[in-house]
Amino acid sequence: MTSTPPTACILIIGDEILSGRTQDTNIRYLAERLGALGIRLKEARVIPDVAEVIIATVNDMRRRHTYVFTTGGIGPTHDDITTDCIAAAFGRKVVRHPKVVAAMQAYFGDRANEARLRMANIPDGPDVALIDNRLSIAPGYRIENVFVLAGVPSIAQAMFEALEPTLTKGDPVYSQSVDAEIGEGDIADALTAIQNAHPAVAIGSYPYGRSGKICTSIVARSTDRTEIAFVIDEVAAAMRIHHAEPVFGPAP
Amino acid sequence: MTSTPPTACILIIGDEILSGRTQDTNIRYLAERLGALGIRLKEARVIPDVAEVIIATVNDMRRRHTYVFTTGGIGPTHDDITTDCIAAAFGRKVVRHPKVVAAMQAYFGDRANEARLRMANIPDGPDVALIDNRLSIAPGYRIENVFVLAGVPSIAQAMFEALEPTLTKGDPVYSQSVDAEIGEGDIADALTAIQNAHPAVAIGSYPYGRSGKICTSIVARSTDRTEIAFVIDEVAAAMRIHHAEPVFGPAP
Repeated sequence: MTSTPPTACILIIGDEILSGRTQDTNIRYLAERLGALGIRLKEARVIPDVAEVIIATVNDMRRRHTYVFTTGGIGPTHDDITTDCIAAAFGRKVVRHPKVVAAMQAYFGDRANEARLRMANIPDGPDVALIDNRLSIAPGYRIENVFVLAGVPSIAQAMFEALEPTLTKGDPVYSQSVDAEIGEGDIADALTAIQNAHPAVAIGSYPYGRSGKICTSIVARSTDRTEIAFVIDEVAAAMRIHHAEPVFGPAP
Repeated sequence: MTSTPPTACILIIGDEILSGRTQDTNIRYLAERLGALGIRLKEARVIPDVAEVIIATVNDMRRRHTYVFTTGGIGPTHDDITTDCIAAAFGRKVVRHPKVVAAMQAYFGDRANEARLRMANIPDGPDVALIDNRLSIAPGYRIENVFVLAGVPSIAQAMFEALEPTLTKGDPVYSQSVDAEIGEGDIADALTAIQNAHPAVAIGSYPYGRSGKICTSIVARSTDRTEIAFVIDEVAAAMRIHHAEPVFGPAP
């Protein structure tokens, strides 16, 4: 537990997201996991496979946040430039890690060619720590406060699970939702009053359609579960005034 | 058509994305549509519902890109602060648009309360243009090179369709893919050679699993369809050398 919660930024490195070819899912996965650890995700950026942009963004973000998580660009092909850029951002050389070479040779056998062995390249320095990849051997790594993960979601997730115990946690943020078949405009004034009365709770209002009906989901988020319960009760009461039946999400 | 292609940035404004509650889909939708128009999407950022961050980011991005598209934060509730922030970023007042008020009163009748009429608030100025919302009346708007859209994906899409004819197009970027049951490490050297021989084509390599098999999708992107065809043929030949049968995506 820390008095000032740790913060984080996610950098999604990949032309395939910016071209619309690929739907990113790493932001949501990391956002959920970081939230559960009490680490405040302050920003996520999707940036292209362009060295100057990657280097400048990493250097900007690592000074502003407790942790930076990158995904993408650590494979064996010509468009995988993340490691070279991370090393440049930290002013380090790239070295080939002997233990990773040995693991890749054992795993790939004859197919451990030069391209694949590039995945054993990491920035130099005694502080650089490998991040285990139980799915496909080639590791991620941590350098200072920057965690470099694969772009393939299943591998990014395996790497996050491996690094998660090393993170400094903050006070966990809890949340509860309450939904009703009601327009958010109908309860907006009530929400404003409830928000003003409970400044320690962040109240979000999210409209959606279901079977042609307009619905609203109200989400209360806070480190204080008692305050969340008060807020959710008050929101439910406001929904009932408009003859809308509240449906409660799981208790925080 | 322009000689220097127009560029764009997307700003996703919303705590619900950064908390992991909501999977963003607006980046991918806008990325695909902008790509088809030849507008180069250079960056996408997810930022929180924090006024200083929104104002600073909008002011930074609008000076760097031809177009900025924001989504989120223009509804009727207390957490909808985008319009106030956009006005502050441009040093303008917020005014209530009489035509929008009339349209909302006609649509909502008795339910056109003060909260809903806040959605008729837009930054002041003769250059500010409304963006039609055929789904739920409350419009988006354009101010200089910034387009302010709703966060709900169906409404963001309706607004984009309405504003699309006003955009300056660039040379369209075409793409074609070729997939095979092969590890990307097996064709990495060939890809490097092909990329070096065809600098006008961006070649991306994307591994994935299917039924427990390792597959790779190679995507060639360029404004020059002939060059794409050359690249795809050469990649397919490299796949066949490894006894992998190429499966071609639609012609560009």
